[in-house]
Amino acid sequence: MAKTILLIGTLDTKAKELDYLRKRIEAEGVQSLLMDVSCKAAPSESVSDISCRKVAGETGKDFEEIVQLDKISAVNLMTEGAIKIVKRMFDEKRLHAVIGLGGANGAELTCAVMRTLPIGFPKLMVTCVASGNVRPYVGTKDIMMSNSIGDISLNRITKRVINNAARAIAHMASEEFFADEEVKPQICMSTFGTTLPCVERAKGLLEEKGFEVIELHASGTGGMALEELVRSGEVSGVLDITTSELVDDLVDGMYSAGPRRLEAASAMGVPQVVSLGALDFGNFGAKETVPQRYKDRNFFFYTPSITLMRTNVEENQILGKKMAEKLNGSVGPAAIIIPKKGFSALDRAGGKKMTRIDGTVSGDWHDETLNSALIKSLKAQLDASKVRFVEVDAHINDPEFAEAAVQLLVELMKQ
Amino acid sequence: MAKTILLIGTLDTKAKELDYLRKRIEAEGVQSLLMDVSCKAAPSESVSDISCRKVAGETGKDFEEIVQLDKISAVNLMTEGAIKIVKRMFDEKRLHAVIGLGGANGAELTCAVMRTLPIGFPKLMVTCVASGNVRPYVGTKDIMMSNSIGDISLNRITKRVINNAARAIAHMASEEFFADEEVKPQICMSTFGTTLPCVERAKGLLEEKGFEVIELHASGTGGMALEELVRSGEVSGVLDITTSELVDDLVDGMYSAGPRRLEAASAMGVPQVVSLGALDFGNFGAKETVPQRYKDRNFFFYTPSITLMRTNVEENQILGKKMAEKLNGSVGPAAIIIPKKGFSALDRAGGKKMTRIDGTVSGDWHDETLNSALIKSLKAQLDASKVRFVEVDAHINDPEFAEAAVQLLVELMKQ
Repeated sequence: MAKTILLIGTLDTKAKELDYLRKRIEAEGVQSLLMDVSCKAAPSESVSDISCRKVAGETGKDFEEIVQLDKISAVNLMTEGAIKIVKRMFDEKRLHAVIGLGGANGAELTCAVMRTLPIGFPKLMVTCVASGNVRPYVGTKDIMMSNSIGDISLNRITKRVINNAARAIAHMASEEFFADEEVKPQICMSTFGTTLPCVERAKGLLEEKGFEVIELHASGTGGMALEELVRSGEVSGVLDITTSELVDDLVDGMYSAGPRRLEAASAMGVPQVVSLGALDFGNFGAKETVPQRYKDRNFFFYTPSITLMRTNVEENQILGKKMAEKLNGSVGPAAIIIPKKGFSALDRAGGKKMTRIDGTVSGDWHDETLNSALIKSLKAQLDASKVRFVEVDAHINDPEFAEAAVQLLVELMKQ
Repeated sequence: MAKTILLIGTLDTKAKELDYLRKRIEAEGVQSLLMDVSCKAAPSESVSDISCRKVAGETGKDFEEIVQLDKISAVNLMTEGAIKIVKRMFDEKRLHAVIGLGGANGAELTCAVMRTLPIGFPKLMVTCVASGNVRPYVGTKDIMMSNSIGDISLNRITKRVINNAARAIAHMASEEFFADEEVKPQICMSTFGTTLPCVERAKGLLEEKGFEVIELHASGTGGMALEELVRSGEVSGVLDITTSELVDDLVDGMYSAGPRRLEAASAMGVPQVVSLGALDFGNFGAKETVPQRYKDRNFFFYTPSITLMRTNVEENQILGKKMAEKLNGSVGPAAIIIPKKGFSALDRAGGKKMTRIDGTVSGDWHDETLNSALIKSLKAQLDASKVRFVEVDAHINDPEFAEAAVQLLVELMKQ
């Protein structure tokens, strides 16, 4: 059976370009299906395989009603309709890859559809907004973004880009995606530069024990991806070493994973061992981006574009309380493991100094009072009948800490 | 001849992952060459085809010297060495595609190398930093970015992503890239939502006359790409309708194309017709991102995430002077064309109202005084012996304006 590539685009504005892409894809020996997600005017139906009227119909509305709506509502409805059709085709194994072509609006709609497809299923978006902040488009998924450089219209530059994209998507499409794989049980682990020795040691130990480890970088999308993977049901355990995104959610730092971080494993009953990695600071960009309200705080200038702000007593108390509340909801085995000698590479006795915003040294980064504010608050509110509380007299990056954390997780997974 | 794919990565940290990628690429029936750009430690040379010592050697330094340097200097030197090798291989037509695999540091180095290759030559970067601001990596080039979701290590998720990337790069590689194309003379045109009617009319007219039009969106990278394309020598003329990036460079808006915008055509002697499209405002993000120093200015809230700030008299005078200075340096035919009835969709008599930052209406957006401040300053400083000054009694989006601009460009190109 020939493989089938779904093309998504707006025929009211990009008919010539979609036709060119389609021909280039078919030249690679695969089939194509064109879905029209026009939101303003209905082009001739004969060009598309799935017309904008059909897409609209999935929402229970007429296309003519949708075009009368404000732009955001119209786009949302067409997105909803497209998602339904794509889900059905995917479930019936009638699709092998998806490609989109469009500007900012087209990318928004098309990528929203792509994000509903599982990781590994080929997705490629050709757009002029692929050289900026693509997080709203890519999110936590594996959408390949191809920069058209110029606006989407046909010229020698965009033709070269479209040609490459056509070859890429035609050959990424594969029956393999639907084949059963023999797989090892999978552990998700949250990582960060300042907890790397812990993470690497733990990974080695888990792999020796026959697990596969997915490392998610605690930079916002990483934590979100961790939560999504856990909710997908494919994960056997979580070693949440680096919960630092909770700080950024609290202080509006740049690596927030949103308010739902640290909830999926509890809700799904997936065994989890949680630690306090990098909870000693929030992350901001360059010095100038630190919000005015924090100008009197203590900092460490990690790189010219990353400024770390030391958490204070109040924040540590809130963090302890939040973590306890989230973990108390666990319906499966859960433990919290405390590295008593420090939460990150910065946070150890005799370690780094912190400074004021102007660079003058203001004291030691490592501060027993701050860490114990978090630990006390956490312990006080933790439901000991649901969550084990384990203290290790070591720094988070000491090998014995990683060893204890792995051993604890393995025990929980045997329950 | 089998096609050859160059793999770039750091064997000191990603040996297993690069080996996996290499095997997947070769399974597609193409050859691979592995270039090691390790910057910290030298791995076994037997694994790479181009060792990190060879890369270092291109810079006239020993690898052992380079690892002693600070990180930034070491990365810069290895980048320089890698660029030299890749350029040589490309010139000798021994390369058909490039793929990279790495974290933030790896992406920085590898993408810097990729950006030296021409548009259309297949480039693909697999990295965990592909779901954020990728502009520092992609820049003005067509680097496909593939999000590895987890950190780069081997697990079922990254394997799926790497498999897709291997198939994509193996089949994008093509002899075609080096084939001669028969091509139409190429015009670069700067575009924007608020000058779209002008741009579309001009494009239609130019295409009727046998030109190919490359539209570059005035969002920073668009203007930079325009300047680069002009400098590449492949462009026959420039219709610079939308010079609005100059405002953002002046007011620190979000769409600055840097201080060198509007200089390439003058320097290269490429015929250019320049206009004042969207010079009536600077672009900021959501309302909260408008810098404190502008809180007393006038605005238009274009979308929840785009805030337009009306330029003032002083800014208009500076803009006029800057444009004149840049255009006075033209070594080829140049003209400036003025739309007397307004610079953008907002800027027309009886058009939009502007408001204070709190949303209270503060007057008409269209303001003769502001526009003439720019026009007078420009005219006063323009060297009439080098740059034609043409006024059209129309709005920028009136069809007669686009027609006049195209006619003018065609005349200049005949000189």
